[in-house]
Amino acid sequence: MTDRKWVYQYEEGRADMKGLLGGKGANLAQMWNIGLPVPPGFIITTEACKAYWSDPEGLMDSIWPQVRDAVSKLEERTGKAFGGAENPLLVSVRSGAPVSMPGMMDTILNLGLNEATVDALAAASGDQRFAWDSYRRFIQMFSDVVLGVDIGEFEFLLSRVKGGQGCSYDHELTHQSLRKLVESYLRLLDSKGIKFPTDPWEQLRLAVEAVFKSWNTPRAVTYRSIHQIPDDLGTAVCVVSMVYGNLGDDCGTGVCFTRDPSTGERRLYGEFLVNAQGEDVVAGIRTPRPISELKSTMPEVYEELVKLTELLERHYRDMQDIEFTVERGRLYLLQTRNGKRTAKAAVRVAVEMVREGLITPEEAVRRVTPDQVEQLLHPQLDPTLKFDVLAKGLPASPGAAVGKVVFDADEAERMGKGGEDVILVRPETTPDDIHGLFAARGILTSHGGMTSHAAVVARGLGKPCVSGCEALDIDLARGVMRVGQREIRKYEVITIDGSRGLVALGALPLVQPSFSDDFRELLDYADGLSRLEVWANGDTPEDAQRARSFGARGIGLCRTEHMFMQADRLPVMQEMVASVTKEERIEALSKLKVMQKEDFVGIFRAMEGLPVTVRLLDPPLHEFLPKVPEMRERLEALEAEGKGDGPEARKIRVLIQRAESLKEANPMLGFRGCRLGIIYPEIYEMQVEAIFEATVELMSQGVQVYPDIMMPLVGTKEEMRRLREMVDSKAKEFEARLGGEIPYMVGTMIEVPRAALVAGELAEDAEFFSFGTNDLTQTTFGYSRDDAEGKFLAEYVRIHVLPDNPFHVLDRSGVGRLMELAVREGRQTRPDIQIGICGEHGGNPKSIAFCHKLGLKYVSCSPFRVPVARLAAAHAALGLID
Amino acid sequence: MTDRKWVYQYEEGRADMKGLLGGKGANLAQMWNIGLPVPPGFIITTEACKAYWSDPEGLMDSIWPQVRDAVSKLEERTGKAFGGAENPLLVSVRSGAPVSMPGMMDTILNLGLNEATVDALAAASGDQRFAWDSYRRFIQMFSDVVLGVDIGEFEFLLSRVKGGQGCSYDHELTHQSLRKLVESYLRLLDSKGIKFPTDPWEQLRLAVEAVFKSWNTPRAVTYRSIHQIPDDLGTAVCVVSMVYGNLGDDCGTGVCFTRDPSTGERRLYGEFLVNAQGEDVVAGIRTPRPISELKSTMPEVYEELVKLTELLERHYRDMQDIEFTVERGRLYLLQTRNGKRTAKAAVRVAVEMVREGLITPEEAVRRVTPDQVEQLLHPQLDPTLKFDVLAKGLPASPGAAVGKVVFDADEAERMGKGGEDVILVRPETTPDDIHGLFAARGILTSHGGMTSHAAVVARGLGKPCVSGCEALDIDLARGVMRVGQREIRKYEVITIDGSRGLVALGALPLVQPSFSDDFRELLDYADGLSRLEVWANGDTPEDAQRARSFGARGIGLCRTEHMFMQADRLPVMQEMVASVTKEERIEALSKLKVMQKEDFVGIFRAMEGLPVTVRLLDPPLHEFLPKVPEMRERLEALEAEGKGDGPEARKIRVLIQRAESLKEANPMLGFRGCRLGIIYPEIYEMQVEAIFEATVELMSQGVQVYPDIMMPLVGTKEEMRRLREMVDSKAKEFEARLGGEIPYMVGTMIEVPRAALVAGELAEDAEFFSFGTNDLTQTTFGYSRDDAEGKFLAEYVRIHVLPDNPFHVLDRSGVGRLMELAVREGRQTRPDIQIGICGEHGGNPKSIAFCHKLGLKYVSCSPFRVPVARLAAAHAALGLID
Repeated sequence: MTDRKWVYQYEEGRADMKGLLGGKGANLAQMWNIGLPVPPGFIITTEACKAYWSDPEGLMDSIWPQVRDAVSKLEERTGKAFGGAENPLLVSVRSGAPVSMPGMMDTILNLGLNEATVDALAAASGDQRFAWDSYRRFIQMFSDVVLGVDIGEFEFLLSRVKGGQGCSYDHELTHQSLRKLVESYLRLLDSKGIKFPTDPWEQLRLAVEAVFKSWNTPRAVTYRSIHQIPDDLGTAVCVVSMVYGNLGDDCGTGVCFTRDPSTGERRLYGEFLVNAQGEDVVAGIRTPRPISELKSTMPEVYEELVKLTELLERHYRDMQDIEFTVERGRLYLLQTRNGKRTAKAAVRVAVEMVREGLITPEEAVRRVTPDQVEQLLHPQLDPTLKFDVLAKGLPASPGAAVGKVVFDADEAERMGKGGEDVILVRPETTPDDIHGLFAARGILTSHGGMTSHAAVVARGLGKPCVSGCEALDIDLARGVMRVGQREIRKYEVITIDGSRGLVALGALPLVQPSFSDDFRELLDYADGLSRLEVWANGDTPEDAQRARSFGARGIGLCRTEHMFMQADRLPVMQEMVASVTKEERIEALSKLKVMQKEDFVGIFRAMEGLPVTVRLLDPPLHEFLPKVPEMRERLEALEAEGKGDGPEARKIRVLIQRAESLKEANPMLGFRGCRLGIIYPEIYEMQVEAIFEATVELMSQGVQVYPDIMMPLVGTKEEMRRLREMVDSKAKEFEARLGGEIPYMVGTMIEVPRAALVAGELAEDAEFFSFGTNDLTQTTFGYSRDDAEGKFLAEYVRIHVLPDNPFHVLDRSGVGRLMELAVREGRQTRPDIQIGICGEHGGNPKSIAFCHKLGLKYVSCSPFRVPVARLAAAHAALGLID
Repeated sequence: MTDRKWVYQYEEGRADMKGLLGGKGANLAQMWNIGLPVPPGFIITTEACKAYWSDPEGLMDSIWPQVRDAVSKLEERTGKAFGGAENPLLVSVRSGAPVSMPGMMDTILNLGLNEATVDALAAASGDQRFAWDSYRRFIQMFSDVVLGVDIGEFEFLLSRVKGGQGCSYDHELTHQSLRKLVESYLRLLDSKGIKFPTDPWEQLRLAVEAVFKSWNTPRAVTYRSIHQIPDDLGTAVCVVSMVYGNLGDDCGTGVCFTRDPSTGERRLYGEFLVNAQGEDVVAGIRTPRPISELKSTMPEVYEELVKLTELLERHYRDMQDIEFTVERGRLYLLQTRNGKRTAKAAVRVAVEMVREGLITPEEAVRRVTPDQVEQLLHPQLDPTLKFDVLAKGLPASPGAAVGKVVFDADEAERMGKGGEDVILVRPETTPDDIHGLFAARGILTSHGGMTSHAAVVARGLGKPCVSGCEALDIDLARGVMRVGQREIRKYEVITIDGSRGLVALGALPLVQPSFSDDFRELLDYADGLSRLEVWANGDTPEDAQRARSFGARGIGLCRTEHMFMQADRLPVMQEMVASVTKEERIEALSKLKVMQKEDFVGIFRAMEGLPVTVRLLDPPLHEFLPKVPEMRERLEALEAEGKGDGPEARKIRVLIQRAESLKEANPMLGFRGCRLGIIYPEIYEMQVEAIFEATVELMSQGVQVYPDIMMPLVGTKEEMRRLREMVDSKAKEFEARLGGEIPYMVGTMIEVPRAALVAGELAEDAEFFSFGTNDLTQTTFGYSRDDAEGKFLAEYVRIHVLPDNPFHVLDRSGVGRLMELAVREGRQTRPDIQIGICGEHGGNPKSIAFCHKLGLKYVSCSPFRVPVARLAAAHAALGLID
């Protein structure tokens, strides 16, 4: 054991030796070796820590000669003597694991002090108070961390002395009081049978052992288990000579960043205090000064700092966060690390560093996380902001919004047009509220899940939404809502956080989004690295326009039913649904066709040259009808008015009857999707005609159109075969009319398990697959999303029955396994089959990484999530997301 | 081609040469060779037919010398001459394919007749009328089948002659009239330019060709394609000398079975007519006499017939259906084949033949189909019965019932106890109607699917049920139901057929079920051949008793929730569901525990020595609450009575609130199954305690108990792990109490796709799997059974989008694939894992065959289907069901 090298000099280390020297030690070594003014020191390796745990005594005996040698070198370098009665060498002892890890012993400062050296320190510094205060702190810290004495007992003594002297702050104590305090500290230890070690070597040996021991404290073990850090890494120990920023006005301490961590602007940013130690900044007694003022206060130091920090940034090729101390005019760098930054700064720094030639575009992409991009896209509450939560609901659509509470869509629209910020608050929303949703800053509902009308529309609009906030008791009639005893009236201001599902009273400060040129450039870098394309889900020309502007390479899901929900179409749609005979249905459909064709013309034009995947009608027909109780009420009102035999009443009666006959116990598993298209062929035929009419019209004008026709809820080969045949035969008609080929494809959603299980058969007719992972997750788990989320899913995640909500993060073992199978067998049948995903998972980074692994062609997500997905796709390709 | 052998003598054939000689030919040859009196003849092979289709002329030229030789032999054998002016040889020409196949040419009789031979026939038979009638019929038959002349034209001439003579029946015509009729037949043919062939050789050649041609008539081709008979088998042609049963009182004809085809009793059964031809029996002019009377009429013939038929039965080792003719005191056997029989007869014949040493038990099992067993278990409508269908619904529970229409459960009970047969007719049924369901002969509902309350309870009770009969418009208040314009009042008699989903007016005749000793013996044979065990689903001691008496080897599914539905428990269950705090819930649960324990004691005792698989609570809690509108009505009534503040009203308000908060959009995918057990651990803990309390009580008395505890709706490893841990820890407590080991197992349903996909992980904790294929089918397809069946599933099957209803016949490509995967991966983790199925497919023969292939340990089905399943399991093992 004695043969091994346990102690490293800075000269022997490098930044990439974090495994052996720990993060802190490796960085200190690196700084030293590039010639930066680092206080001299040495590092005891993580190997020593590991050896300590198998044979504590043996290891300590084995390393000690090497430690003594290293201390000797330190004495040479500093010209001070460890335990010396003059100009004593004091050191700090810190742990430094390969991975940053709270919960272990942090720091012991001023090690080496005792009755003798304290006087020497006083003499050397010319400051009695400083010396005795340092000694007091050392005893306190050492006793706490090394000797295991409760720090509270020292604090009690300290406060008694302060009380006796009528002082409020530590620094008001005189050096005499401090000396007495030291004595009382030592007596306290004595009374416990503890002799405070006065020999600096013994202090050092105990401190090093304490660092080793701290590797296996319960807190550290727990932390590692939670963060999946291996238990056998061990920690290194950094022993560094002390420097002081509080020995006079030519001293000081500070922290600086090489770029502005809020904006990313390239300038030295930070603050400092003259004649102070790091602790003084934390204590908050004196206000630190902006770093720019250092220029006038200590011009030479400032100049050197600028030079050194630039050097550091160039060296590490990233923005640095640097701690420094000035001791008697001499600048020391104590620590450097990559600086934390806001999302906005992260983007700017990364892109500017590419422009400066400091890093490659790939490196820039690596440095911005999808989470940060997420922050950039919506106004956000500052995540560190502390506030009282009024109520919790579901995080239905991300971002935060502030506005006046309004309970009515019309009023929301009126106020919104008048320029006021409103939050539309409803028990739940319906298509009738759509104008109110448009006008509001955010939406809050007391009922409904993550796929409720409010949630889906809000995500589509990119507006924050909190849904299913069951604690809200909304009294529409009185225009108030209650949460427990608290009553909130109409027009009171609230803030909602749709990223976290929170509601608060009043206007909390928001961080505004930005979509800068830098950001666009970064996403272009990202696209260059991705193997996955990012497409968008969009149902209108506006959606398509927006998706395109965010960089979507196609429309992966155009839901035709959303078109039918619009106010001018709904009555015609209802006429179709209420039809009893096929002839009636065809008549209503022919009216719808005209409208639908116009929609397609708009979308195809907006996406010129890019594919548009149109999904044929999916929801059960009863979704297009008003709710039965509402209809009954209206009917009763008409009867009361003596209009019980009028045309409206008659129509309502038909609709009620139809609604009753369409009622389903489990609509999610009911008469919808291609089942409608098979049983009522005329519906899908109308839709396909509308698509091809729009295509032919635009192609005749020279517009490039790529319509992909997608069948929902297919589960059997026969469904796919029939539907494909129908589209092909319609296509022939329209190609004849056009006098040329239409570049269309026919494909299917894979959204029930059976579709995945027979994907090989489906691929005989399907030219593309698109995974509808929302429904696939529902059917694979047997979870109705709307029911599950509020009733047991949140609790399942809380008590760790599930690692994540599978509607947010794609479940790989179950749903993912079906996807793998479908991809493999689909490709066996049709090697060039195009495969993508259009469920909400298409916007989730972890899920995108999985899609990358499956080798899908694209992920399709809400237009507002396209930037996140583009970055995530690149991160997946770079192996940064697993 | 000329070298090949196209024509076979009987001597050259055997029963197992059906491929070459056709079924008819091979049997004739066989009979001949075992010395039975068969009219001489020969067979032209199926090879000839096949050759004919590639080269008609060539083939005919090639076979003709062989046919001529064979006819010469025939002349020798019969002592008659083909085309001879004295004692002419007449023959029948019939097709005979290897597989029985309607749609081809059947028979031409009396071939060889012409102007000359007809006189010879008259002379030989001494009966002019007979000769001319034979000639007339021959011309008619030949013209129709060989010459392609519409038989109607001959019938027209015949009826004109009869009219002219004032006759009603053919046999009233004199030989003079018949001779004139023959002349008019020939004139008719002349007028069409057809010369009727008078040369018997030409007649024969044309008839043989006609048989060949008939192989490819559209009807025959269609029949083969539907029944998947290969097109390249070809048909043989049997040419047999004519014998006559109508030449005097020493002649006759008849049909007999070697055993009674209705009962299976071993006695010669059949009927005969003296001086008659087969046709006369069909014409229905004379009533045939029972075969027993032949004993006195023709004692010698009877004796020989008995001897020969016994010989045939022993030879074919199956009950024979024999046609015979007596020509001038000489017995000829014209045909023998295995006789068709009723299900009851099939069982008796099979088992008695085993006892007689005629066949092996395996052969006996092979001869009875699961469908026949099905017939034995329920009263049935005669499937050939023709009747007017009043309305169609879903075939929710098999069997037929006759009874008076009653619309109210109480009245059904009262009348049922009074000994009257009633059919309970309801829009749908609820647990409140259970006494009415018990008392009724059958159940008819206008709403609800195959898993509606009525359907499930009816199947459990083994009573016929037609559900979802939407054409019924039931007016409970007036006590009538309407179907279209037809009104049916209370107490009118109807018949329902739950096997086919039909409703008819009046009392149709039913075939009663039987469960004889023979049947038990047959099922014992079956068990000896099966690899699959048959268990039963049962929720009560009575169910268990019944299951055991039907031969179930265990309980595969004991649904604890059905216990909670009973009238005395429901209020306590509702108390539990309405609980707000855990304490309240535990209090209600402790009351339920006492009741539940008693249930388990009863079931365990009934199944002593056999495993009982108890599934913990599965349905969503709201299923235990009354419907909200009903509660609201009751509440309004109470309020109107001024009892709005009374205890009942208060309780109802709580239940309404709870029902509202438990409401789900898709309860099938909601808060149910083990999700309840995880979120409210106290519920499952109570149930497990009740199971172990019952176990310990019985084991202490020396009763062998094997409780298997089954978790419903498990989808993740973590659910399984927690629940298993809970059961194990409870088991430890009770084992300590018992002072011994409890032979329990813990396992899971596999009923959502994810469970199958992670079966390997689940098997780490689960000691058994039970496939819940009802739910697995729902989630794999995304079909809600209740919604799908009425809305699109029936139509899907009708238009062949699906081959079968996947809730009836297990879907192998989708659901089955998941099962295969779960079996494979479950066994990888735990090689001795016990795997069974407890969905309704467990009683379906095709699905049982699939379970056999998967190598499951057991199928579990409703007690009433256990016999069907036992036989099906054996048939699967014998490879009879694919």
